[in-house]
Amino acid sequence: MLTLTEIAELVNGVVVGDENKVITDLASLKTAKQSSLSFYNDTKQAQLLFACQAGVVLLRKEHSTLYSGNKILVKDPYLAYAQVSQKFKDISCESRGIHEKALISHNAAVHPTASVGAYSIVDQGVQIAEGVRLGTNVRIGANSVVGANTVIEDNVVIYARSSIGERCCISSGAIIGASGFGYAPNSQKWEKIEQLGAVKIGNDVDIGANTTIDRGTLDDTIIGNGVKLDNQIQIAHNVQIGDNTIMAGCVAVAGSARIGQRCCFGGRVSVLGHLEIVDDVTVYSNGFVCNSIRQKGEYASMIPVQKVSVWRRTVANINRLEYLAKKIKALGKPENDR
Amino acid sequence: MLTLTEIAELVNGVVVGDENKVITDLASLKTAKQSSLSFYNDTKQAQLLFACQAGVVLLRKEHSTLYSGNKILVKDPYLAYAQVSQKFKDISCESRGIHEKALISHNAAVHPTASVGAYSIVDQGVQIAEGVRLGTNVRIGANSVVGANTVIEDNVVIYARSSIGERCCISSGAIIGASGFGYAPNSQKWEKIEQLGAVKIGNDVDIGANTTIDRGTLDDTIIGNGVKLDNQIQIAHNVQIGDNTIMAGCVAVAGSARIGQRCCFGGRVSVLGHLEIVDDVTVYSNGFVCNSIRQKGEYASMIPVQKVSVWRRTVANINRLEYLAKKIKALGKPENDR
Amino acid sequence: MLTLTEIAELVNGVVVGDENKVITDLASLKTAKQSSLSFYNDTKQAQLLFACQAGVVLLRKEHSTLYSGNKILVKDPYLAYAQVSQKFKDISCESRGIHEKALISHNAAVHPTASVGAYSIVDQGVQIAEGVRLGTNVRIGANSVVGANTVIEDNVVIYARSSIGERCCISSGAIIGASGFGYAPNSQKWEKIEQLGAVKIGNDVDIGANTTIDRGTLDDTIIGNGVKLDNQIQIAHNVQIGDNTIMAGCVAVAGSARIGQRCCFGGRVSVLGHLEIVDDVTVYSNGFVCNSIRQKGEYASMIPVQKVSVWRRTVANINRLEYLAKKIKALGKPENDR
Repeated sequence: MLTLTEIAELVNGVVVGDENKVITDLASLKTAKQSSLSFYNDTKQAQLLFACQAGVVLLRKEHSTLYSGNKILVKDPYLAYAQVSQKFKDISCESRGIHEKALISHNAAVHPTASVGAYSIVDQGVQIAEGVRLGTNVRIGANSVVGANTVIEDNVVIYARSSIGERCCISSGAIIGASGFGYAPNSQKWEKIEQLGAVKIGNDVDIGANTTIDRGTLDDTIIGNGVKLDNQIQIAHNVQIGDNTIMAGCVAVAGSARIGQRCCFGGRVSVLGHLEIVDDVTVYSNGFVCNSIRQKGEYASMIPVQKVSVWRRTVANINRLEYLAKKIKALGKPENDR
Repeated sequence: MLTLTEIAELVNGVVVGDENKVITDLASLKTAKQSSLSFYNDTKQAQLLFACQAGVVLLRKEHSTLYSGNKILVKDPYLAYAQVSQKFKDISCESRGIHEKALISHNAAVHPTASVGAYSIVDQGVQIAEGVRLGTNVRIGANSVVGANTVIEDNVVIYARSSIGERCCISSGAIIGASGFGYAPNSQKWEKIEQLGAVKIGNDVDIGANTTIDRGTLDDTIIGNGVKLDNQIQIAHNVQIGDNTIMAGCVAVAGSARIGQRCCFGGRVSVLGHLEIVDDVTVYSNGFVCNSIRQKGEYASMIPVQKVSVWRRTVANINRLEYLAKKIKALGKPENDR
Repeated sequence: MLTLTEIAELVNGVVVGDENKVITDLASLKTAKQSSLSFYNDTKQAQLLFACQAGVVLLRKEHSTLYSGNKILVKDPYLAYAQVSQKFKDISCESRGIHEKALISHNAAVHPTASVGAYSIVDQGVQIAEGVRLGTNVRIGANSVVGANTVIEDNVVIYARSSIGERCCISSGAIIGASGFGYAPNSQKWEKIEQLGAVKIGNDVDIGANTTIDRGTLDDTIIGNGVKLDNQIQIAHNVQIGDNTIMAGCVAVAGSARIGQRCCFGGRVSVLGHLEIVDDVTVYSNGFVCNSIRQKGEYASMIPVQKVSVWRRTVANINRLEYLAKKIKALGKPENDR
């Protein structure tokens, strides 16, 4: 529950309208009620703005005339909305303190302001900093470190010797520090290479549900500050990800790949092992990166679906491209083509 | 253990042979014994039917003469087999009642016929309807609702405020209602947009192992009635999936996509965000949907593997398609080509 | 902590230098200290070897002169390193014995040398052999069997009637034996086919974090001896995988596919259902296998990313391949082309 004055302060904006109006919830332009705050960022939504019932709308100065209700003028309505959303986060179901059914090793150091949910296990040598919240059925392996105000949700497993920074959020089912996938061929079998490294995660990192980050072989797997990983991402051993890089769901990065800062990967991007990707590289959804990328910019490799009948002919033509290319070469022969 | 008469009643079929014959197990035509029921649906299996030892075979009237043993004549043997299979489901390991090591909030309403496994946690405000079965190490977050006769298997996490319908089955490791992946750029960092919506799941929905369904940003993520989701599927925030749509393993649907009814997605299909797919669309395995699909039908976009030596030349030719196209244009110039 | 003599015995090598030198850790050539063992396998690393500070390096006889410090001459340095690594495995955080917060059914047979972690559940009829270690929050379903010296890490779920061999390692979050994905169409809905088979896993199998292996419909899903599966792999019902086959992260294999021995799949390979792949087939990362592979060898089908501007033209040209092919045919007509 915030007044327009309080919201304007939070987002560094200017109220036009009733400054004492109280906002109790957030909503899209379409579903907003008199109690709601909404935002206008996309000129395709001008019709929705016109008909909007929101108690207040965040918008840019130049769009001010498009809405007759209460408004707060800001530079970047989407960012302002993000900032407001954090005040409306649902905290009703948070556990507080150490649950009596949690198991804490006598050798673990858990800060008195931290909370640990039922049936969670904190092993020996673990350090849990102030304000940390662990969900239920969580395991924190021996000698791991969890930084201040980090949230680790239900059924997460953190293997031994992992290091998690401050203000991180790790969603349910994520597995941090499982064994990397390393084998040496031995006759026709595979000999396990024990994975003796760890996982080091910076500050302000988010990790999605059921995402897996393997520990390193000898050196560590390293996730930089401010990295955001969506659900079901697979990060293999010894990968390094630079600060503020963001990856959508189901991305997979193979062993020892090094990814720069501020990169942006769409869903299901694949990166092969031992590659380097420089800073500020964007890879579109489902892109297949099998060589190092040494130049910043945008990359892609996926083919959109077609009707199956059309696609079958396309595949047939792709499969005879070599023939078509030779044919073209033969047709152009008189001109002495390459 | 059922007699042929009981089975015929169940599947609306006609017994030809010993009506009192007792069936104790199900098997394929190849492995069936005298105690087994099998079914014949595929004319490629005529040889197997001929040699079959089953106590009874479900088949179509027109195939009746192909089998000399006991048989039950039905319209659709595969469907009839599905119906029988439900009677032979293994229930020996079901837990019953509230396990003494389960934690139930005093403010939760758990129907007396429901069961909750060991080390599971049911939070405040949760409503669990009749006949619900929760496995072990399950977490049901605050104020969630679980409809009658739904089964939630071991190590599933249901976040707060989720709504699950009746007769659903959620397999182990599924995560329902984790935070959607929403950030606003703020200088060179990412500002979290708190995800304040929930997940609403209809009746008769199946959700596979380690599948993740994120909660909505403001509005809810909605899964319709009769939807069937296989393992390791990722459904992002605010997605809507229409009734009776079915998706095979590893499908990923990005944020705010709206998918119609009775759609059928092969494994590993990808759908980008904010798209619409109409009813009755089939997308073949690994298809990449990056535009809305407004016409029902079948779609595809994947290229089959080739021998690596051949494939390398194919890729080289794909990468010089622009050159080849220009060459063709030049060759055809006299005819005033497009 | 091993002496060079002990290490040489282990890897069947010959010490050149101080046989009593004690090694306490493993490291790469770059980060090795006087206490470390390292290995030299790749002639691209000759510079690193030259500057290396390791207490001992494993290398081939023919490279012996490249390093002036202590060395152990071996046939295959990478394999020798793998064997040494197993002696340096971190065992400090292992639980021992049956934790007082573990629940063991009175009808389960747990060998006295086995250990079971806190909040784990071992159901009725389960057999746990000698030396088995179960992590925390693990569920072993009724009548399952776990072979000698197998390790099952935290938050793993093994469904009822599964069979796991000896010396296996199953990483956290893996789900073994969830229901296969089988439905018969019934009007416009889907009728569940109950999955009555099980999962059978051989000896020396590794299974990665959050990998899922479904139980069979009637017959079993079968994983051969020595199979190595990385994280987030999906194995559908009734799949059979031959001995010593290895699969990198995010591979998906659809129902009833049969995969041979000693196959090698890169990350994110997809295999459609009901196919057969013979022994010794390698499929490169992200390859799409939609037909049986009857000849051993290497297969691929993925297109590398390009700059988006280039890629857009490539896709446009792929989509008009049919037109280009016709054009070529028309141009070549006088020569009576196919």
